[in-house]
Amino acid sequence: MVYPETFEGFQVDSAETWTEFKKRELIPKPFGPYDVEVKILACGVCGSDVHTITGGWGPKNFPLCVGHEIVGEAIRVGPSVTLIKQGQRVGVGAQIYSCLDCKQCKEDDETYCKHQVDTYGGIWPGTDTVLPGGYSSHIRAHEHWVFPIPEKLETNLVAPMLCAGLTAFSPLVRNGCGPGKKVGIVGLGGIGHFGVLFAKALGAEAWAISRSHSKEKDALALGADGFIATEDKDWNEPHIMTFDLIVNTANSSDGFDLGKYLSLLGVHKKWVSVGLPEGEGQMVRSHDFMMNGCFIGASHLGSRKEMIRMLELAAEKQIEPMVETIQISEAGCKEAVTRMKKNDVRYRFTLTGFDKAFK
Amino acid sequence: MVYPETFEGFQVDSAETWTEFKKRELIPKPFGPYDVEVKILACGVCGSDVHTITGGWGPKNFPLCVGHEIVGEAIRVGPSVTLIKQGQRVGVGAQIYSCLDCKQCKEDDETYCKHQVDTYGGIWPGTDTVLPGGYSSHIRAHEHWVFPIPEKLETNLVAPMLCAGLTAFSPLVRNGCGPGKKVGIVGLGGIGHFGVLFAKALGAEAWAISRSHSKEKDALALGADGFIATEDKDWNEPHIMTFDLIVNTANSSDGFDLGKYLSLLGVHKKWVSVGLPEGEGQMVRSHDFMMNGCFIGASHLGSRKEMIRMLELAAEKQIEPMVETIQISEAGCKEAVTRMKKNDVRYRFTLTGFDKAFK
Repeated sequence: MVYPETFEGFQVDSAETWTEFKKRELIPKPFGPYDVEVKILACGVCGSDVHTITGGWGPKNFPLCVGHEIVGEAIRVGPSVTLIKQGQRVGVGAQIYSCLDCKQCKEDDETYCKHQVDTYGGIWPGTDTVLPGGYSSHIRAHEHWVFPIPEKLETNLVAPMLCAGLTAFSPLVRNGCGPGKKVGIVGLGGIGHFGVLFAKALGAEAWAISRSHSKEKDALALGADGFIATEDKDWNEPHIMTFDLIVNTANSSDGFDLGKYLSLLGVHKKWVSVGLPEGEGQMVRSHDFMMNGCFIGASHLGSRKEMIRMLELAAEKQIEPMVETIQISEAGCKEAVTRMKKNDVRYRFTLTGFDKAFK
Repeated sequence: MVYPETFEGFQVDSAETWTEFKKRELIPKPFGPYDVEVKILACGVCGSDVHTITGGWGPKNFPLCVGHEIVGEAIRVGPSVTLIKQGQRVGVGAQIYSCLDCKQCKEDDETYCKHQVDTYGGIWPGTDTVLPGGYSSHIRAHEHWVFPIPEKLETNLVAPMLCAGLTAFSPLVRNGCGPGKKVGIVGLGGIGHFGVLFAKALGAEAWAISRSHSKEKDALALGADGFIATEDKDWNEPHIMTFDLIVNTANSSDGFDLGKYLSLLGVHKKWVSVGLPEGEGQMVRSHDFMMNGCFIGASHLGSRKEMIRMLELAAEKQIEPMVETIQISEAGCKEAVTRMKKNDVRYRFTLTGFDKAFK
C-alpha cells in the first residue's frame, strides 16, 4: 500500500468565513513510531468544531480543518505500535497525544496531561503544521488515542461516540452512576442524548432536564425515566435533594437559575459540566451550596480505558444514538455547521461518503 | 436543684446597635423530653455571631442573644434522654435540633435536615420565642446536639471547637484528609487555624494559604508544613495540580482570583468552602475548571459522629487552639464582636467568667 504524504480535507480560512469550506491538500504531523494512520470513513460534527471555526472560543490558527469524531481504517502503524493492527476499524477522538509518563497519565487522567495535544488546531511541536482534523481523508494519532471499534457498532453511529459519547460517559462512571442512583442530564443535545443513553445502560434512573417540553418525546424514546422542563413553574420542588448526580451538557448558561438546579442534588452530590460555554462565566452564590453542601465542577473527555469500556457497553447493549448523515463536501460541511450553530440537529450529524470526496 | 424558668443573657436590639449588649431575662424554648439543659461555663465568639447581629446576612429577629460555641454543665436531662448524664461537662454547637428521621439525618448528614433548628435566632415552632444563644446563663438543646467533653480538654480551649473546630474538621474527614495527602487551608482565622491543626492531626501535609505573610509564623507554630502568600508573584506556579483538597475558610472572596486557587488542585479534587461570605457571590468561569476537572462546593458544620471523633482526636493529640479569653459582660461582648469584626483576633475569643455575670 502507498501511504499518502499529504492528506486532503475541508478547511475554513477565518472566523468571518466559518461556513465556507475549501477542499485542499493538508500537511499532517510527521509520522512517529507510535503513530497510527487512519483512512477516514466517517466523522461526527461536534459543537467544538463550531465554537472553534466561529471564533467563539477566541482566536484560532487558520486555515483550519476541524473534526474529531473519527472512524476509519488503520492503514499504517508505526514500528512501536502494539495496541492497533493494520486493517482494523478504529476511532480517533478529540485528543491525539499525551505523554503517558506524568502523574495524570499514570492515573488514567491523561486528558489532563500538561503535554496533551488536541486532535486539531494546535501547532505540532517543532513544526509549522496546524494539526488538521477529521473533515479530511486521513488522520494520524498516537496509538494510545486510537481505539478499536467493536464489530457490532455501525460506523456512522459510533463516530459521535468518540467525543460526545465519551464526554457523557466518563463523568457518569467516575461519579457512581449505576443501579439505585437517580441521575440527571441537563441539556438534550449531542452530548446530552448520549448522557441519557449511557445513564440507562449503566443501570441508573435517568432524568432529562431541558428548558422546554419540545424534546420530551425524544428523551423518553431514548429511555429516560423522567423529564423535567425548567420552563414549568416550581419545576425543582418535587425533586429537591433527590439526585445523586447531574451531568450538565448545556452549551450555554444564559438565564440559568443555578440555585434551582443545585437544589436537586443530595448532600455533597455533584453537578458536573462537560461543555465549555462561550462567554464570561456565571455568578455563583454561596447560598446556592448551603442547603445540601453540593459541588459544581467539570469533566474533560475521558480516559482510554473509559473509551474502550464505553464502546463495549454500547455494543453489548446495542445502544443506538440518533444520527443524521450528511455527505462530506464543501456544501455538506457548510450545512452541518450551519444547522449545528442553530441547534437544528437531533442529535448528531455524521459526515459520510469519504470515498466519494477523496481520491 | 431548682431549674430556672427563664435564663439571663446579653442581647442586641438591632443591627444598627450591634455593639450594644444589654443584660436581660431570656425566655427559653419549652423543655422537651429529649432536651438537655446546660448551665454555661464558656462560649466562643463565632464569625456567625457578628454576621448575624450586624445584619450582614440580612434581617434577623431582635432583640437577640447570640453565641453557639458553648461549654457547660448538664444540669437537667429530659425523661427520654439517654446520651447525656446530669452533671456531665458538655458542649453545644450551632444547631440544637434535627428530626433524626429523614434521609439526611439517617445518613449522618443531619446538618442538612430540612427540619434542623439553629441554636439561636429562629422562632421555636408553636411559640413566640426567639431562640437565645450562648452569651447567656443557660442553653437548652436536643440530646443529639449535646456532646460530652473529654476530660483532658480545657473548657476555654474546647469551646471554639464546637462550631469553628467542627466546621474545619468535617470537610477534612469527608474528603480523605490523611497520610500522603497534601491539604490546603485558605484563610487563617478562627476556622482556618483549626483547619491547620486538624489536617496535621489527621496525618496530612498541611499548607496554610493566606493573602499576606503576616500570619506565616503563627501557621508554622500551629504545625503547618508550608505557607503560601497570595500577594507573592506567581504564587500558584510551584503548586499547580499538587493539592488533594483545599478547605476555604476565608470570610470574603473580594479580589479572589479563583482560577489561580483552583489551579492548585489535582484532577477532580475539591475546593470546599465552609464560610458563608456576605454579599452577592462570585463569578465562576468554565475555563477555571478545565485544566483539572476540579470541583467547588460547600460544607456546613458536621455530624454528631464527627463532633465526637474530633473531640477524641483533640484530646488524644492534645490539640491546643490559640484562644484569648474575655470576661463576659456588656463591655466584654462589645469588645469581642468589635475586634472580631476588625479581624483583630488570633485566633478565637472565648467568653468566660459566667459565674460572675449571672446569678
